[in-house]
Amino acid sequence: MGRPAVLLLLLALLTPGVAIPVPPAVKALSSLRWSTSFTSRHFTGAKYSVHYILQKVDHFGFAVDKTFKQRYLIADEHWKKDGGSILFYTGNEGDIIWFCNNTGFMWDVAEEMKAMLVFAEHRYYGESLPFGNNSFKDSRHLNYLTSEQALADFAMLIKHLKRTIPGAKNQPVIAIGGSYGGMLAAWFRMKYPHMVVGALAASAPIWQFGNLVSCGVFMEIVTTDFKKSGPNCSESIRRSWDAINRYSRTGAGLGWLSEALHLCTPLTNTQDVQHLKIWISETWINMAMVDYPYESDFLQPLPPWPIKVVCQYLRNPNVPDAQLLQNIFQALNVYYNYSGQASCLNVSETTTSSLGTQGWSYQACTEMVMPFCTNGIDDMFEPHSWNLREFSDDCFKQWGVRPRPAWIITTYGGKNISAHTNIIFSNGELDPWSGGGVTKDITDTLVAITIPEGAHHLDLRARNAFDPTAVLLARSLEVRHMKQWIKDYYANLRKKH
Amino acid sequence: MGRPAVLLLLLALLTPGVAIPVPPAVKALSSLRWSTSFTSRHFTGAKYSVHYILQKVDHFGFAVDKTFKQRYLIADEHWKKDGGSILFYTGNEGDIIWFCNNTGFMWDVAEEMKAMLVFAEHRYYGESLPFGNNSFKDSRHLNYLTSEQALADFAMLIKHLKRTIPGAKNQPVIAIGGSYGGMLAAWFRMKYPHMVVGALAASAPIWQFGNLVSCGVFMEIVTTDFKKSGPNCSESIRRSWDAINRYSRTGAGLGWLSEALHLCTPLTNTQDVQHLKIWISETWINMAMVDYPYESDFLQPLPPWPIKVVCQYLRNPNVPDAQLLQNIFQALNVYYNYSGQASCLNVSETTTSSLGTQGWSYQACTEMVMPFCTNGIDDMFEPHSWNLREFSDDCFKQWGVRPRPAWIITTYGGKNISAHTNIIFSNGELDPWSGGGVTKDITDTLVAITIPEGAHHLDLRARNAFDPTAVLLARSLEVRHMKQWIKDYYANLRKKH
Repeated sequence: MGRPAVLLLLLALLTPGVAIPVPPAVKALSSLRWSTSFTSRHFTGAKYSVHYILQKVDHFGFAVDKTFKQRYLIADEHWKKDGGSILFYTGNEGDIIWFCNNTGFMWDVAEEMKAMLVFAEHRYYGESLPFGNNSFKDSRHLNYLTSEQALADFAMLIKHLKRTIPGAKNQPVIAIGGSYGGMLAAWFRMKYPHMVVGALAASAPIWQFGNLVSCGVFMEIVTTDFKKSGPNCSESIRRSWDAINRYSRTGAGLGWLSEALHLCTPLTNTQDVQHLKIWISETWINMAMVDYPYESDFLQPLPPWPIKVVCQYLRNPNVPDAQLLQNIFQALNVYYNYSGQASCLNVSETTTSSLGTQGWSYQACTEMVMPFCTNGIDDMFEPHSWNLREFSDDCFKQWGVRPRPAWIITTYGGKNISAHTNIIFSNGELDPWSGGGVTKDITDTLVAITIPEGAHHLDLRARNAFDPTAVLLARSLEVRHMKQWIKDYYANLRKKH
Repeated sequence: MGRPAVLLLLLALLTPGVAIPVPPAVKALSSLRWSTSFTSRHFTGAKYSVHYILQKVDHFGFAVDKTFKQRYLIADEHWKKDGGSILFYTGNEGDIIWFCNNTGFMWDVAEEMKAMLVFAEHRYYGESLPFGNNSFKDSRHLNYLTSEQALADFAMLIKHLKRTIPGAKNQPVIAIGGSYGGMLAAWFRMKYPHMVVGALAASAPIWQFGNLVSCGVFMEIVTTDFKKSGPNCSESIRRSWDAINRYSRTGAGLGWLSEALHLCTPLTNTQDVQHLKIWISETWINMAMVDYPYESDFLQPLPPWPIKVVCQYLRNPNVPDAQLLQNIFQALNVYYNYSGQASCLNVSETTTSSLGTQGWSYQACTEMVMPFCTNGIDDMFEPHSWNLREFSDDCFKQWGVRPRPAWIITTYGGKNISAHTNIIFSNGELDPWSGGGVTKDITDTLVAITIPEGAHHLDLRARNAFDPTAVLLARSLEVRHMKQWIKDYYANLRKKH
């Protein structure tokens, strides 16, 4: 999640035993700058209008009666008042325009579903800042940055749309979101089933909390992606850490490392090396998330199946340290320099971003407490255990608040969610977030769709000629479910009248 | 709801066009003092233990990390670890011990359901005061008095019980509540279906909000109760207001009125007369709520079918004012002096109470905005329309907050709740609150049970030899549903293991 995430990561790794809090879709945000030059042919000319709604800063208390402007986008080119629907993107931790541009699926199905598209920005992100420039000033100003407040914003917005847009009132709304936005879509259906007839929760790790899943599963999946993408690939990476550590013992070693990895800023101390290792780890994580089958620029401009490309440089783990690290550089260079324009690698590059940087760090320190750990055996990373106490202390230092790691499970039900209906949980098996996702049907109407060749919410991306069959199937299943919800809605409506 | 409710009522009536906000179970609380001498044979010796749990003052924000002690009671005499259940009373606006003593139904079914009984006190009532004596100091201290925070308390408490009481972990919990507590029970199942397998919401006016039902329905039901209980009864009351008004024009008239009604404090001005009329209106409302078929002391010690007794004095509306008002006195005397001990009538008596007085007034001014109105035609009261703006201004004057009348519908779904399951809505047809209740089945598992001869949550009261058949039937249906939920729970549990 941009800079603060790095800070936390840094704190985490500098404090032995504290694990890595990697937020969903975090990496996505770090490349927000790419979105300005986003030129997928699919979205050239995608038309939406920009709107604002006044929201209460605090939906759950009455002492603060202040309001703020929440931004949302509407695209109604294909919307039909007769028998149509409203697809409502439950915005996550970033600028809503970027999500709008990166959720091609909604645009692709709009005509078929006679749908109005609505993209709602999450409070404290993009332009939707409750206290303007002071929004991240302190814990008092950040107090209203919670998933519950965000869901309440969505509910108020849907009511507003139904009241103000002629023809919208008696139309079914479906929540759609990816990553944290996918969690919000699912939770929105759970908590406000009167507002949406169903939810498509793509790559939503709603179980990456408490001990609902093993804290190691995330990094294990990253590792598996590399293992499967080339012989000895993950083993090469596993060995690279010690190689880095050995070079880091001397000033000369640091100098060599800095040159071998073409770093823009030379390494000078232990902290720099920690930062370097985090940056490299994050790079592998990012690649696992965006291991798409076609050329893409979701996080960085990348070739098709980027991990396979990377792994071509990492076939031999049994080489001297120098050679191994030169190979690592080649691998990193695929991710950071696919365009061939970069003259050096900037270790803050995956993580700087003009947007969403502070918000997620706060959320991870309060509600969104996702335990991560590595053991270096089942994964290719240096071992780090999950230490809640130290994590909490770090959060307190950074934000003046302490996490409540059990709250998300208490309020959203953890694994005990079978009373709910009409939620599609889709996951790509390549996506490390699938480890905390729902990958098996819970009931007839809480269904899991898995995409073996899919990375992070591939199904939400625009149609592409190189889409694997599995994602085409997933999307068509998703559409089938959504159409059923819409049909049921209209059948009930007719029954009532 | 005790004194502040009166204040609001007063404000309401003094401001033309503002209607009467009568909270559910409010009147119940005004007689909290009766509970100490409560000696229903059923509860003599009812055994429970008193406990406290530390709760976050704010479940929905992290800036305030303060905690407070929530009180709860446990009765486990009949609880079985093998195949048992937990009946969880979702405490409403008052001292939990009083609710515990007045919810005989739970005690009556405990053995049959092998149930542990838990009675959870609602924050800001009884002993569960987040800021001790300062809890009602100002809007800042009152900020955490909402239904959402109360539900979160219940969720945290259930988690705590399951974690700490051996044998409780894998047992089904059922939420039970009456009046506002019934709304909480229903809403708890809606928002936390992972916590409770179902809810019994007795006399829960979940639709007494916005324009979900007509604002006049409440007082129309009160009127019908009187109309049906004796010839010309409601007509006599309808005519009494003008008689009072006529007497109130002169000082001598006020003197006569004060004597005729045996008032402890003589009337001296217009405001006193307004207060008197409110007090009389509240008396009729109270009687409609507690029109039980047997001698009871829920709000006041009363004879069986108290309205019938009252109506014996109100058979002739066509008498001179003096006679009419003397008859009204006789009627009031039934309610206030069944014991024969009172030497005069105290116009603040229905509404004074040592408990719960301030909390509900604040809740009615924030979330629990229930529009009430009268027109003097379909009901027996003086006409008062519902005027939200003036109501809001009054609330702002009293509490420094403004109501958000649409919020309850936005968050809990209004009439659009068919996605939920396993809620029993029971209503007595004599109960004015049934007008805002669910009195028809919504789905197979959202069922309505109506009790023709029932007043306010008669079904939750202890078994009585004079119970009408309808309430016996209602209770047996309720038990049947609850047993089914328990059976389903255990069947699912076995499937998982």
